[in-house]
Amino acid sequence: MNKGTKKAEEKREMKLWDKGYELDRQIEKYTVGDDYLLDRKLVKYDCLASIAHAKMLAKIGVLSKKECADLVKMLEEIIGLDKKGAFAIAPADEDCHTAIEAYLTKKLGDAGKKIHTGRSRNDQVLVALHLYYLDEFKKLKSKLVSFQKVLSAFRNKQGNFAMPGYTHMRKAMPSSAGLWTQCFIDAVEDDLLLLESVTQLIDQCPLGTGAGYGVPMAIDREYTASELGFSRVLKNPLYAQHSRGKFSVAILHLLSSIMLDLNKMASDLILFSMPEFGFFELPEKFCTGSSLMPQKKNPDVLELVRAHYHAVLSHEFQVQGMCANLISGYNRDMQLSKEAVMKGFEVTLASVAVMTLVVEELVVNKERCAQAMSDELYATEKALRMAEKGVPFRDAYRKVAEEFKRP
Amino acid sequence: MNKGTKKAEEKREMKLWDKGYELDRQIEKYTVGDDYLLDRKLVKYDCLASIAHAKMLAKIGVLSKKECADLVKMLEEIIGLDKKGAFAIAPADEDCHTAIEAYLTKKLGDAGKKIHTGRSRNDQVLVALHLYYLDEFKKLKSKLVSFQKVLSAFRNKQGNFAMPGYTHMRKAMPSSAGLWTQCFIDAVEDDLLLLESVTQLIDQCPLGTGAGYGVPMAIDREYTASELGFSRVLKNPLYAQHSRGKFSVAILHLLSSIMLDLNKMASDLILFSMPEFGFFELPEKFCTGSSLMPQKKNPDVLELVRAHYHAVLSHEFQVQGMCANLISGYNRDMQLSKEAVMKGFEVTLASVAVMTLVVEELVVNKERCAQAMSDELYATEKALRMAEKGVPFRDAYRKVAEEFKRP
Amino acid sequence: MNKGTKKAEEKREMKLWDKGYELDRQIEKYTVGDDYLLDRKLVKYDCLASIAHAKMLAKIGVLSKKECADLVKMLEEIIGLDKKGAFAIAPADEDCHTAIEAYLTKKLGDAGKKIHTGRSRNDQVLVALHLYYLDEFKKLKSKLVSFQKVLSAFRNKQGNFAMPGYTHMRKAMPSSAGLWTQCFIDAVEDDLLLLESVTQLIDQCPLGTGAGYGVPMAIDREYTASELGFSRVLKNPLYAQHSRGKFSVAILHLLSSIMLDLNKMASDLILFSMPEFGFFELPEKFCTGSSLMPQKKNPDVLELVRAHYHAVLSHEFQVQGMCANLISGYNRDMQLSKEAVMKGFEVTLASVAVMTLVVEELVVNKERCAQAMSDELYATEKALRMAEKGVPFRDAYRKVAEEFKRP
Amino acid sequence: MNKGTKKAEEKREMKLWDKGYELDRQIEKYTVGDDYLLDRKLVKYDCLASIAHAKMLAKIGVLSKKECADLVKMLEEIIGLDKKGAFAIAPADEDCHTAIEAYLTKKLGDAGKKIHTGRSRNDQVLVALHLYYLDEFKKLKSKLVSFQKVLSAFRNKQGNFAMPGYTHMRKAMPSSAGLWTQCFIDAVEDDLLLLESVTQLIDQCPLGTGAGYGVPMAIDREYTASELGFSRVLKNPLYAQHSRGKFSVAILHLLSSIMLDLNKMASDLILFSMPEFGFFELPEKFCTGSSLMPQKKNPDVLELVRAHYHAVLSHEFQVQGMCANLISGYNRDMQLSKEAVMKGFEVTLASVAVMTLVVEELVVNKERCAQAMSDELYATEKALRMAEKGVPFRDAYRKVAEEFKRP
Repeated sequence: MNKGTKKAEEKREMKLWDKGYELDRQIEKYTVGDDYLLDRKLVKYDCLASIAHAKMLAKIGVLSKKECADLVKMLEEIIGLDKKGAFAIAPADEDCHTAIEAYLTKKLGDAGKKIHTGRSRNDQVLVALHLYYLDEFKKLKSKLVSFQKVLSAFRNKQGNFAMPGYTHMRKAMPSSAGLWTQCFIDAVEDDLLLLESVTQLIDQCPLGTGAGYGVPMAIDREYTASELGFSRVLKNPLYAQHSRGKFSVAILHLLSSIMLDLNKMASDLILFSMPEFGFFELPEKFCTGSSLMPQKKNPDVLELVRAHYHAVLSHEFQVQGMCANLISGYNRDMQLSKEAVMKGFEVTLASVAVMTLVVEELVVNKERCAQAMSDELYATEKALRMAEKGVPFRDAYRKVAEEFKRP
Repeated sequence: MNKGTKKAEEKREMKLWDKGYELDRQIEKYTVGDDYLLDRKLVKYDCLASIAHAKMLAKIGVLSKKECADLVKMLEEIIGLDKKGAFAIAPADEDCHTAIEAYLTKKLGDAGKKIHTGRSRNDQVLVALHLYYLDEFKKLKSKLVSFQKVLSAFRNKQGNFAMPGYTHMRKAMPSSAGLWTQCFIDAVEDDLLLLESVTQLIDQCPLGTGAGYGVPMAIDREYTASELGFSRVLKNPLYAQHSRGKFSVAILHLLSSIMLDLNKMASDLILFSMPEFGFFELPEKFCTGSSLMPQKKNPDVLELVRAHYHAVLSHEFQVQGMCANLISGYNRDMQLSKEAVMKGFEVTLASVAVMTLVVEELVVNKERCAQAMSDELYATEKALRMAEKGVPFRDAYRKVAEEFKRP
Repeated sequence: MNKGTKKAEEKREMKLWDKGYELDRQIEKYTVGDDYLLDRKLVKYDCLASIAHAKMLAKIGVLSKKECADLVKMLEEIIGLDKKGAFAIAPADEDCHTAIEAYLTKKLGDAGKKIHTGRSRNDQVLVALHLYYLDEFKKLKSKLVSFQKVLSAFRNKQGNFAMPGYTHMRKAMPSSAGLWTQCFIDAVEDDLLLLESVTQLIDQCPLGTGAGYGVPMAIDREYTASELGFSRVLKNPLYAQHSRGKFSVAILHLLSSIMLDLNKMASDLILFSMPEFGFFELPEKFCTGSSLMPQKKNPDVLELVRAHYHAVLSHEFQVQGMCANLISGYNRDMQLSKEAVMKGFEVTLASVAVMTLVVEELVVNKERCAQAMSDELYATEKALRMAEKGVPFRDAYRKVAEEFKRP
Repeated sequence: MNKGTKKAEEKREMKLWDKGYELDRQIEKYTVGDDYLLDRKLVKYDCLASIAHAKMLAKIGVLSKKECADLVKMLEEIIGLDKKGAFAIAPADEDCHTAIEAYLTKKLGDAGKKIHTGRSRNDQVLVALHLYYLDEFKKLKSKLVSFQKVLSAFRNKQGNFAMPGYTHMRKAMPSSAGLWTQCFIDAVEDDLLLLESVTQLIDQCPLGTGAGYGVPMAIDREYTASELGFSRVLKNPLYAQHSRGKFSVAILHLLSSIMLDLNKMASDLILFSMPEFGFFELPEKFCTGSSLMPQKKNPDVLELVRAHYHAVLSHEFQVQGMCANLISGYNRDMQLSKEAVMKGFEVTLASVAVMTLVVEELVVNKERCAQAMSDELYATEKALRMAEKGVPFRDAYRKVAEEFKRP
C-alpha cells in the first residue's frame, strides 16, 4: 500500500458508515452541507449522551470498566476542548458524531470502536438534540422572565400615563401605557405556558431507539434516560423518528409565538414613536441613520425584530413542508430541520434580548400623549353613561354618533 | 317619509354600528364575505354568552329583572330555533351578532336595545369563539381517543406480524405491525398533551374586554366568566385582541400536528398497500376507480388525508402572516381568521374520523410481510452479536458490510 | 332485482369508474368534498372541450356523424342550461364531468357512453381548467387595465399635490400624490407582464394526454387543440400531470403578486388617512362603524384587502406543499388545488375591483399634505446643493445632520 | 482629543450615516446581522455600479475628470482585490457599500467623499442586487440547459425501455424511460420561459431612484442604465422600493418552480430505485451508508434535493410575509430578503448541478422494468380496442373491469 492510498484510507475511516467506496466529491459537499459548522453546538451534548451510553454499555457488560472509564475521561476531555473552541469538526467529518468517534478511536483504539455498540447515528443525533433543546429552553425561559421584569418596571414607572387606544388604526377609547405594557406581560405569560408544554414533549429520552426499529440487544434505556436527567423514555423507536419533525415544528411554533408578540410590540413602537404621534421615545443610541438623508433617525432595530418574526415563521414552515408526504422511518430530508431549529432559537433569543434593552430605555412622552386624548375617545363612555340612566344603549349610541358626524 | 326610504331605514337598522349612511353595495359584499354563513356555527355560543351578559347586567342594575328574564327566554328561543336550523342570518345582517340583536330588539323592543350595554362586538365575537373552540376541543379529544382505541385493537389483533422496517426508503431492520401502530398511538398521546395546553390558553373569558380597552362601567367579569364555565378571566383587554391571532395560530398548530400524524400514516399505507409490497390491504369499499383504466382501485381517501394536512397548514400560515406587522388593537384583517380556524377544525375532525374507519378495516397481509423479511434486515443484529462477543462494533460492522456488497 | 337494488344500481351508474361495488358513505363524502359545488364553474368549459373531443372522435371514425352531431347539440344544451343556473350537479355525481356524461348517456344512450373514448378524467379536468384559467386571465387583465386607468385619472387630477415621503416610517424627502400613484401603475404594468408569461404556460392543450401516459389510439391532438383555440399542444402526458401543480402555483404566484401591490396600497391608505395624518380621505360610504364606539369610521375594506393578500398566499403555499414529495403521475392530492386556484381568482378579482372603486373616490387633502411638508424633508436637497458647489457630499451631509440634531 | 477618542472617531467614520453618536453594541450586532458576510457576493457589482455612477457624475460636472478617473481606477482595484478574496468587509463596516466608500475615501480623500453624491444606499443596494441577479440568471440558464442536454442524452440512450406508469401510486398504463425523461425536459423548458419573464422584470436599472423619492439633482439615469447594460430605466423611485420585495418573490418563485421539478424527479428516483422496484439504478458513489446497519446504501443526495425544495419555498414564503402589511418606502425589514434570495440561488444552482450528475450516471434496469409490465397495464388498451370496434366505451370499460376484479 503506497502512501497516497493510505492517506485516502485514513480519510475514509472518518465516515461512520464507511464500507470501502468513495463518495463523489460534489455529492459529498452537497450532502454534508453546513452540518460540520452547525454541529459545533452539539459537541457537548453528544459527549454527555456518549458518557451515559458508555456507562450503560459497561453496566450490561459490553464494555469493561477500564474501557468505560477511558471513554468517559476522553469524552470529558472533548467537552473541555470544545468549551475553549479547540475541538474542530472538518467538513470531511460530516458531523460532530463522526468527529467524536474518530477522536475516541484515535486516542483509545478498540474502546473507541466499541462506543457505537447498540446505538445508531439516528438516536445519537436525537438525544443530542433533545439535550440541546432543553438547554435552549432554559435560556429562553430566563430571557422571557427578564423581559417580563423589565416590562413590569416600565409599567410601574410610566404605566399610568393616559394614551389613546386604537382599533382599525383609528382612535377608539382611552388607553394607557400600563394597559399596553400589561398586554405583553400577559402574552409572555402564555408563551411560558406553551414553553412548559413543549418542554414536556422534548423531555423524553430517544437514546436506544436505534435507527427507528430499536436495538436487538439488552440495552438499559431507563438507565441512560435517568443518567441524562430525562423524565421519561421515548419508547416507540419509530415514533422517535416521526417525532423529530413533529417536535421541531412544536419548538418553532413556540418560537414564532414569542416572535409574534415582539412583532406586535415593535409595530406599535415604530408607529407611536413617529414624530407625528410622539407617544414613545426611543433612545438615540438605538437608532440608525440614512446614507443620503442627514436628518434621519430610524428605528431599524424594531424593524428587524418585526422582520425576524417572518424568518422564524419560514423555518417553521420549512420543517412543516419537509417532513410531509414521506413514509415512516428516517429520511435524510430531516437533516435540514437542524439548521431551521437552531436558527429559530438564535434569532428568538437575540430578539427577546434586544427588545428587553429597548424597553429598558423606552420613554413615554406624557405631554404628547395628553395632547392626543381628544374628545372622540370618550364617546363610548358618554353613551354608556346615558345607558346607565336607562336610555337603551342602541339609542344612546345613535345619539352620540350624531354628535361626531363629520361637519 | 315615503315607503322606499322607510324600507332602507329598516334595512339599515340591521347594522350594529348604523349611524345613518349607507355602505357601497359592492364594498358591503366584500367586507361581509362569508361571515353570515360561517356564523351559523356561532349562534348558540353567542346566545349563551349573551345570557351570561344579560344576567350580569341585571346583577349590576343596568337591566331590570323582567328585562333580563325576557332576554334570557328569547335567547333560549333562538338557541332552539338554531338547533332546528330555523334561525336565519341574512347577508345584510353581516354576522350572527347583528342578527341576534336585531331579533331581540324586534321581539322585545328596548330590552333588546340594551343587551349591548357594556360590551363590544369585539369581545362578543371573542367569547363566542372561545366557547366554540372549547366545544370543538371536546369533540376532537373524543375522536382522538376513539382513534387510539381502534389503533390499540388493531395492534392487539395483528400487531405481532413481522414487517420490514425502512429508513431512507430502503430496507433497514425488522419491524412489526405492532411497532408501526404504536408509533401513532404515541403520537396521538402527545397531541392530547398539546390539546391540553391549548385548552388552557382558550379557557380564559374575554367577555368584558370591550373593543380592547375595557368597558368604562362597573361590569362584573368574574361573574360572567364563571357563568360560562371558564376557569379564569382573560384580564388585559388589549391582550384579548392580540390573543385572537396568537390563539388561532396555536389551535391551528395543534390541528396541523394531528394532521401530520395522519399524513405520515396515510403515506405509509399508500406505499405499503401497493401490490408491489402488499403488507397492508385496504378494503375495496374505501377505494375508488379510474374513468379510463378499468383495472384500477385507488387509495383516494388516503391521498386526500395526506393532502388535507397541507390545507390545514395553509390555514395556519394564513393567520400567521395576516396578524403580523400590524399594531395593537382590533384590525379587521382578523375577520378572515374565523374561516381559517373553522375549516381547520372541520377538516381535522373529518380526517381523524376517516382514518379511524380505515384502521378498523385494515388488514395486514401476513404472508407478504413474511416473504419480505430478507436477510439484509438482520445485518445489524449480526454485527451486534459479534460486538457482544468482544469484536469492536466498528470492526464487526465492516465485516458484515463486506458480506452485503453488491456482487 | 327489487326496486331498492335497482335504485342503488342507478345511483352507482353515476360514477365514471363504477365497477359494481359501493363506496363507504362517509368516505365518499370525504373524497367528493366540495367538488360538486366548485365544478359549477367548469361545466361550460367541460362542454366546450367535449364538443372538440366529439368532433375529433368523428374525424377519426370512432363516432358517426350523427352521434357527433347529437353530442354537440346536447352539450350546447347543457351550456345553455348552465348559463341559466339550471344544470345541477348532485353530490353523488362527484363532479361536473360525471354529471355531464350521465346527462349525455341518459339523453342519447350509446352515443353518451362513447364520449369518453380516448380520454381520461385526468386530461378532461386539465383541459377544462386550462380553458377556465384563460377566461379568468382575460377578466383579470381587463380589471387590471381598468385599475390602471382609474389610477391615471387620479394622478392626472390630484397627482401634483406635494406629500411627505417616508422611509422606515419616518419623514424622508418630498414626495407627491403623483409619485405615489405612479408606483402602483408601474407595479400593475409588471403584473401584466407576469400575466403574459403565465398565459403562455397555460396556453397549451392537455386534452389527449389521458391519465398521464397518453392514449393508445390514433387521436388527433393538434385538431382538438386548434378547435379549442390553444396555441400549442402540451405534448408530454406525464408533464401534463406534473404541470397541474406547477401551473397552479404559477397562477397563484401571479395573483399574490397583484395582491401584494394592493396590500401595499391599502397599508398606505390606512395609515395616511388616519386623522393624525389626513393626507388621504376615504369616502364615508366605504367606511364601517363600531358596535360600541359611536364616533368610529373604520377603513374595513382596506383592512380586508390587506388581509386577503395573506389568503391568496396561503392558497399558493398549500399547493406548493401539497404537490411535493410525491411521485409522478396523478395523485388525488391534486384535487384540493382546484379550490385553491378558484378562490385565488375570486378574491383577487374582487380585490382589484374594490380598490378601483376606492381610488375612484379617493381624495387628497391638499392642505393637510402642505402642512406636513416640514423642513427636515429638504435636508437632502440642502446637502446636495452644497455638493454641487464642490463640498464633498459626505462633509455636506455631516454639516446638515448637525442642524437637525435633537435639541 | 486623546488617542482613545480618536480611534472611536475613526471607527465611527465607517458608517455612511454617521452623525456623531454611537449605536449600542448589542443593537449594532443585531442590526448588521450577517450582512458583512453576505455582501462579499456584491462587492464586484457595487463597484461596477459605482463606476457608472462616477462617470455620470463627471458627465454632469459634479466630479472633475481627474476625480472620476481616480475613482474608476480605485474601484477596479477593489474588483481585482475581491477576485482574489483580498477585499475584507469588517462587521463594523455594516456592509460592502460602506467598506467600499471608506476605502475610496481613505485612498483618495475628497473624491471618495463625493462618490455618494446623488445616490442613496437604497438605490445603491438595489442596483448591485439587480446586477448580481442578472449574473445568477446567466449561471442558472446555463445549468438548466446542461441539465436538459444530459436528460436528452439519457433519453436517447435508454429512453425506449418500457416501464410501468403509475397513477395514485398504483400501476396504470405502460410508460417508458423516455416518456419519463421528456417530462422533465419539458418542465425545464417552461422554467426557462419563466426565467425569461423574471429577467425582464430585473432588467430595469434602479440607480438614481435614491431613497425612494428620487434625487433632487440633474442626474442622467439613461446614461447609467445604458453603461450598466440594462434595457431600461426603472423609473418610479417608490416602485423601485416596492419592487424589491415583489421581485425577490418573483425570483424565489422561479427558483422554487425549478426545485419542484427536481423534487418530483428525486421522488420518482427514490421510489423506483428501491430494490422492490429496481427500475432505476443509482451509482454506488452517490449513495451513503448507515452508522449502524452495515448493509445500507441510501439515496441521501436525492432525499436532500427533495428537502431543499422546501428550503427554497421557505425563503419565498419569508419574503412574501415580510414585505406585507407595511407602508411604501424602504423599511429595514427588507434587509432580510437579501439572504433569502442569495440562499435560494445557491441551493438551486447546487441542486441542478447535482441532479445533472445523477442523471449522467443513471441506469435503467431493462430486465426489472420488463418484468414489471404486467397485464393490468394493458387494460385500458383492451377497452379502447373494443371501443374502436363500436362497443360504447363505457360498456367496454365495465367488461374489462370485470376481468380484473380481485378473485
